[in-house]
Formats: sequence, C-alpha cells, structure tokens
Amino acid sequence: MASSLESEHPIKAYGYAARDTSGVLSPLTFSRRATGEKDVRFKVLYCGICHSDSVFAKNEWGITKYPVIPGHEIVGVVTEVGSKVEKFKVGDKVGVGCLVGSCRSCQNCTVDYEQYCPKQIFTYGVPDADGTQTHGGYSDHMVTDEHFVLRWPENLPLDSGAPLLCAGITTYSPLRYFGLDKPGTKVGVVGLGGLGHVAVKMAKAFGAEVTVFSTSVAKKQEAIEGLKADHFINSKDPEQMQAAMGTLDGIIDTVSGNHPIAPLLNALTAHGKLILVGIPEKPIEVAAFSLIMGRKLIAGSNTGGLKETQEMLDFAAKHGITSDIELIPIDYVNTAMERMLKSDVRYRFVIDVANSLKTE
Amino acid sequence: MASSLESEHPIKAYGYAARDTSGVLSPLTFSRRATGEKDVRFKVLYCGICHSDSVFAKNEWGITKYPVIPGHEIVGVVTEVGSKVEKFKVGDKVGVGCLVGSCRSCQNCTVDYEQYCPKQIFTYGVPDADGTQTHGGYSDHMVTDEHFVLRWPENLPLDSGAPLLCAGITTYSPLRYFGLDKPGTKVGVVGLGGLGHVAVKMAKAFGAEVTVFSTSVAKKQEAIEGLKADHFINSKDPEQMQAAMGTLDGIIDTVSGNHPIAPLLNALTAHGKLILVGIPEKPIEVAAFSLIMGRKLIAGSNTGGLKETQEMLDFAAKHGITSDIELIPIDYVNTAMERMLKSDVRYRFVIDVANSLKTE
Repeated sequence: MASSLESEHPIKAYGYAARDTSGVLSPLTFSRRATGEKDVRFKVLYCGICHSDSVFAKNEWGITKYPVIPGHEIVGVVTEVGSKVEKFKVGDKVGVGCLVGSCRSCQNCTVDYEQYCPKQIFTYGVPDADGTQTHGGYSDHMVTDEHFVLRWPENLPLDSGAPLLCAGITTYSPLRYFGLDKPGTKVGVVGLGGLGHVAVKMAKAFGAEVTVFSTSVAKKQEAIEGLKADHFINSKDPEQMQAAMGTLDGIIDTVSGNHPIAPLLNALTAHGKLILVGIPEKPIEVAAFSLIMGRKLIAGSNTGGLKETQEMLDFAAKHGITSDIELIPIDYVNTAMERMLKSDVRYRFVIDVANSLKTE
Repeated sequence: MASSLESEHPIKAYGYAARDTSGVLSPLTFSRRATGEKDVRFKVLYCGICHSDSVFAKNEWGITKYPVIPGHEIVGVVTEVGSKVEKFKVGDKVGVGCLVGSCRSCQNCTVDYEQYCPKQIFTYGVPDADGTQTHGGYSDHMVTDEHFVLRWPENLPLDSGAPLLCAGITTYSPLRYFGLDKPGTKVGVVGLGGLGHVAVKMAKAFGAEVTVFSTSVAKKQEAIEGLKADHFINSKDPEQMQAAMGTLDGIIDTVSGNHPIAPLLNALTAHGKLILVGIPEKPIEVAAFSLIMGRKLIAGSNTGGLKETQEMLDFAAKHGITSDIELIPIDYVNTAMERMLKSDVRYRFVIDVANSLKTE
C-alpha cells in the first residue's frame, strides 16, 4: 500500500496519516501529481485541526479509506503554477479549504455553490478526479486546481487565519444566506468552540447583537470580554432560557453533541431561523407545532463555495477577524486531537507545518 | 352556563356547539355583542369544516373550554355595520377566517403578519378582547372587527370558496413566503385532503410543476386528471421515492398523521424547503446531516395575515380556484366529522348554514 502511494504520482510528498480506526497519526511518504496546466502547487505553511479531521481519522462516518492524511484549513506559499493558471504566481500566499474539486457545470456549481455539487471532491479521503485518493494539509505540499485555491489577503495572519477556511466560511455563509448579516440583527451562537467563537466574531462584524449559549458557565467571561458577545446564556438553566424566549432572529448552532432543540426554537422570534452547522449523532426531534406557530425554520449549512470563501477571507481581513489558536508542531497532533475532543483548547489548534514537518 | 351564555351579550345567537370531549355537536342558544363602531355584523351563509374543528371539539389540544361553537371558514352577508366601519356596507358578501383579533401594534401585526401576533384571538374557543369566549361560524351570525373581515370577490363562489379562508391561505402563504410561487418551480404536495388538494390548485396557478405524494394509490387519477398535478408518487413505494431524489424545490406537507420526514428531505434539491402545515402528534425526527448536505430547511407555516388572505381570495377568484366540496345541512355535521376523520370526503365539507340552521 505504502509503496503504491509513493509511486502512483511523480512528485514525492510527505505527511501525517491515520492508518486505522485508532485515528493515531504517524508519518507517511506518499506522492502527488505533476502540476497540471490549471494546477497550483504550494508549500504548506499552516494547517488547522478541525473536529471532522478526528472523525474522519477514526472512520466515525464509516467512509474512511486508510491511510488518510487529514487537513482542510490549509495556508501555504505557491511554488509552481501550471501553464494556464491565471490567478496565481510563484510566491503568492494561498489557502485551500474543504474542497479541491467539483463538476463545475451543475446547477449548484454554476451559481458558485460548489459545496452542494453532488460530485464535489473533498480535500482529503475521497477519490480525486483521476481515481487516486485525495490527501489534505497535514503534509509538506499540495497541488490543486486554481479554481479551488483562495487568494490570501495581504494583512490576514497566515497561522490564525487558517481556520477561517473551514470554521470561518461555515459560519459566515449561513449568516449571509439566511439574512442574519444586517446591523441590529439579534443572533444566537450555540457552543463556544472552534466554530462558535468564529461565529461570534463574524456576527459582531456584521453589526449583530450576539447572544452566546453554552453549557459551560466558565465561558461567560471569555464570551463577553474576550469575544465581545452582548449576552451569555447558560443553556442548562431553564430560567435563563425562558427569559430568552422570542428574542432572536436567528441562531447558529455549532454543537456536534446531542442536545435539545426545542428550547432554541423557543428563543426565536416569529420567522426566526435555527441553522445547524454541527452534526449531532442522533436525529434531532422537533414538534411541528413549534415551527408552525411562528413560521420558524430549521436548516443546515455546509461550508461555502469558492467565491463566497474568498469574500469571507477579504471580510475577515478587513475586520481583523482571525481564529484564537494554539500553534503546535506536527508531532503534537495526536495529543492535540485528544485535547480538542475534551474542548481543551481556546479555540483551534493550528499545526506549524513548515517549521515542524521533517521530510525523511 | 347556558343561561350565562344567553345573557352575557345583548344580541341573541344560535349555533351548534360541542359540550364535552365526545366532540358531538348539538344546538345551543348563546349571544353576541352589540355592533361596535368598527364592527361588521353578518349573517352566516356557509361554513367549511376544518380538521382542527374536530380536534378542538374533542379537546385534543387540551385547551378547549366547553361549550364551544367551531367554524373558521365563514362566508356571509353583511346585515349591520358600526359607525366607523369604512370597508363594508350592508349587503356586502364577506368572509372571516381563523382570526378575529390581534394586538395591532406588535412587530408581527405592523407588517401584516397577524397570524403570528402573540395576542392573536382565534375565531372560536378562546377569550375575546372583552373576556367572553369567541364562537365560530357554525352559527346564525357573526360580529367581527372590520380589520378581520375579508371582502368577498364578486365571482368567487360562496360555498366552495369558504374553505379558502383556512385551507386556501394555509397553502398560499408558504408558497409565497418561501418563494415557491415562480413559474417552473418544482413543488411537491404531501397528502391529498382538504389542504392538499387546494395546495395543488394554488401551486398550479402559480405555474409550478406539481408532484403529489400520497399513500393512497387510488388518488392518482384524481390528482392527475382532476387536479391537473403533473406527477403522482406513492410515498409508500421506496423505488418511486428514490426516483424523486433531488428533484423538488419545495414541498408543502399537509399530513397531520405521523409520517417519516427523511424521504421528503431526500426529494429536495440543494436549498430545497420542506414546509409543514399539518401537525403530526409525535415530534418529527431529522438527521442534521440531511439538512446540512444541501442547505435544506424544514419550516412550519400557519394560515396568513389579513392582507395576504385578501390577496389570496382575489388570486383564487382570478384563477377560478375553489375547494372541491360536499355541501351538507348542519344537522349532518357529526356524521360529516366522522367521515372527514376517515378521509371519506372529496375534499371538504361545507355547511349550508343559512338554509339549514333553524333558530328556535
């Protein structure tokens, strides 16, 4: 297997891969394709650790093929461009997020919603257009069609900006799509983790009045003082939840653990919108009545298209939005993942790939 | 109790009331208020029988106070108007739907969404502004603030138009609000009953391509030939449901019985909308993943505001939309309710009130 991985493409590559359902990551030599005419090759500088990297490494969705190199919050510097690349040149700072391919012609792709293309190609762990498996940013370099490469804004930090490529767009896109991006809008954010803390920053930058819901009272100070949220609600406290009834225009729910939805619907005004971006294991239960009596809605939202991701990066640069991160060397990644699963990070681990990944 | 009901207001009235959880309706003498300066008094000509009339008569929502006179699909002719009434005169044909009051000043009322006003007053079975109980259209006459009275379009039939005041607006409003009113939109309608058959007519009038989902294969011919639906899917047939995957922009789900939601979400395109207007007893179960992977939404919708209800009646008159009805005398109402609960009606019972309700 390893020998096939090393020889299936002409360019030698090196990364950290999960090899079985333990999810433990260890060094792997593999290979990447030659630079195609529309491809951008770049050296990976930083890569964020997303919760779904752990899910995928452990095959918790049942679709993982080992070995797999995770990482979809990737920032780097261009080292080579194909003959027909128009947007990038050697030396440019770039980013790659959750997608490296899509059909480019379906009704989603044609309106810049590549994230909903039925033929979308995830950045790691799935068959690429040529049938070989995609591998992510826990690696020395990437080679990606320029359509799926983002221009990195001049003044956006490379390390703390990296998580925006997943956590940023995943919260920015629903705020925009569901009209929660207007000044004065009352927005709730459920869960103060990797996604949630960026959601608060995005909503504040749009001018929203932001209420954080958390089961961890210890996060109140962080929410109010650190992230400038306007209100904090302990979602385990029925009285606080009752007091919030009918107050919010929309809620971004970032929690992946199973949790009750009814109290969140209660917190919405008529025509309020509850947007799920976390994926609880169990189905959520909803009384139809609670949606009907106020024409409320529950929706899901998944990352964003390339055009909108670029827009988000530019917005983040303009408003000084980054992720709060803990920068780590790549050989700390297994410990980092364990800590992440215990919410023991404020709020995102980012791997200092270029300075810590030693090729053989 | 009856004597209080007879004397609490100055104007004698007569109707059919439920007196206990059997839901059986029988004649009742009661009273209605004098005509206030903004009130319209009208003789009831026709009143539709809605499924919720039975639910309320039997106290299945646990909020009924007996005796209660149901009926919220009411058409009549004006017999008296208050001194400050501006929109109506004696002899006008009028309608009253699900609401007879609201606060008129909240953020919902001020944008013509009275149906989501927290202080809305239902047409029957709840405290009116003066503290007495409201009573509906299974009665000889009504007296209602003109804001909650609809102008009946000249060429809209009085009997078969009556159900539009609930079934019509309940399906028209979500088609409009959720943008499913554009020609060429692909709309599904789940359940072919009182609401569903009107939903098909409304969607067709908007120019939609309509797919009917029903568990009753016998209704295929009615759907296609009678209601001009474009497609019919037996929702019990997994193969037919699979073939519909990803085809619909929106679905109006009119079913009040418990039923699976996941196959309906599958039938939606990315950004598709599933709108619940029926109220199943049990909570619906939804996998967050099925919403996230396509930014789909589930919403509820409840009737419509007065402005939109008038717009709907005018639209129905223009497009020749009425309900398919079975006209009955009022002493048949208990049998009609039993038959309705067995879906043994195509598709709505309407009571010929003026010709069958005999005052003492």
